[in-house]
Amino acid sequence: MSDQDRLDFAIELARKAGAFAKQHFQAIDTLVIESKGHQDLVSNADKDTETLIRAALAEHYPEDGIVGEEHGRKHGTSGYDWVIDPIDGTANFVRGIPQWCVAIACAKDGEAVIGVIFEPASGEMFTASKGGGAFVNGKPLRTVETGDIGQGSIGIGFSVRVPGMAAATAVATVIERGGVFFRNASGALMLAYVAAGRLLGYIEEHMNSWDCVAGLLMIEEAGGRIVKPDPATSLDQGTVVIAGGANIFGEIKEIAESSFKSAR
Amino acid sequence: MSDQDRLDFAIELARKAGAFAKQHFQAIDTLVIESKGHQDLVSNADKDTETLIRAALAEHYPEDGIVGEEHGRKHGTSGYDWVIDPIDGTANFVRGIPQWCVAIACAKDGEAVIGVIFEPASGEMFTASKGGGAFVNGKPLRTVETGDIGQGSIGIGFSVRVPGMAAATAVATVIERGGVFFRNASGALMLAYVAAGRLLGYIEEHMNSWDCVAGLLMIEEAGGRIVKPDPATSLDQGTVVIAGGANIFGEIKEIAESSFKSAR
Repeated sequence: MSDQDRLDFAIELARKAGAFAKQHFQAIDTLVIESKGHQDLVSNADKDTETLIRAALAEHYPEDGIVGEEHGRKHGTSGYDWVIDPIDGTANFVRGIPQWCVAIACAKDGEAVIGVIFEPASGEMFTASKGGGAFVNGKPLRTVETGDIGQGSIGIGFSVRVPGMAAATAVATVIERGGVFFRNASGALMLAYVAAGRLLGYIEEHMNSWDCVAGLLMIEEAGGRIVKPDPATSLDQGTVVIAGGANIFGEIKEIAESSFKSAR
Repeated sequence: MSDQDRLDFAIELARKAGAFAKQHFQAIDTLVIESKGHQDLVSNADKDTETLIRAALAEHYPEDGIVGEEHGRKHGTSGYDWVIDPIDGTANFVRGIPQWCVAIACAKDGEAVIGVIFEPASGEMFTASKGGGAFVNGKPLRTVETGDIGQGSIGIGFSVRVPGMAAATAVATVIERGGVFFRNASGALMLAYVAAGRLLGYIEEHMNSWDCVAGLLMIEEAGGRIVKPDPATSLDQGTVVIAGGANIFGEIKEIAESSFKSAR
């Protein structure tokens, strides 16, 4: 079974999972939310959608491993690991904000080979495969050409896992340099927007693999640059995320690194 | 012609204008963009959509005034002024990010009596009339009950019209106090989200009337609190915007005012 098989499978699975989660979204008032703080809201929808995805993977790729947000780690024997976020942007989802997505990636020996991000609200299906390019609804994606920070916005991620002041400092630094910050609370979607040239780039001190593996592959395949996740550790431990168009990446990396340092 | 007539009219007009603008959005690559810096991108879609709205208003309410983003001020004789933003979130629109909306408000003697915000991507039609409540697709809106900043996100607006550090400081202060910041680059949509209880509140040092009049009425009608715009000046000169659920408003106002002060 080739990477292409897995890509086709991931696209159909993301569509199916998105439709399933959207039914929950439309019945939002009845969701039971286990609040573990604003950033860690977990809904039945999240868990049930991950169960749906895991069941499909277990059936079609029983020898592959799985890393997921809700149900932990399954080790495989094929060298492939699926990295899944059933609902990225859960805080949006549980409050009725339509910006959330299903993110499904597949890594081989720790490096992403497939990435799929599907946003049910817009119907946008972002896809990428290593060496095969990146697309939204079949149309090729390109990161921004510009090297001018004034020509767009930079996504700034934020989570309670790291000192929050790094994000605040990144916001301040972006503004000081004449840029604009953006945070729609779905990290995977913001990374897809970088791949699509809708955002100049993205900064977050730590993201879990299920939030970023699909999007980072997409950005590389769309001509952008990223700080490469460590294949040995990133699936299980997450990674720093710095990404952007090739000509603006250097400045974004400077902003990110100075922000992380200042928050120490 | 009563306020109810105007509300019904505004809803239909927003839907029509949204459908028109969406056709442009779907043909985004062909848009001619007159770039006046990232925050002031003006597209043909913006201008043409405002022209459509103005033509309908001139036909149905010829004695009303109009305040619009693209085509300036028309003074009326009826005491009513329409306050229109054909595309709020233009920077999103021109880059292909689906979060943009049509905002139409109507003020009587400078005070909002009708507010309509329509997001074509999601199909959400947010509506409010003074004393008549606020709704999304007919369902009543309520701002958040909570007084705990950890229970949601706060929208932080940003524009090049005022010193940017106020926004950066607001972001830092929200994080310091245990909150989360949000900025999807459509101010009108973020205000509608406050009315819907999807965000705790919203802070921006200066918004133009067409970006905020509809949303502020919505928040009041949904049980929230706002810093009241000055009826004598706000339509033409804009206003500070501080808004939130009734129990969190005090803290949001503190954060806003300290941020504005620190940036001086």
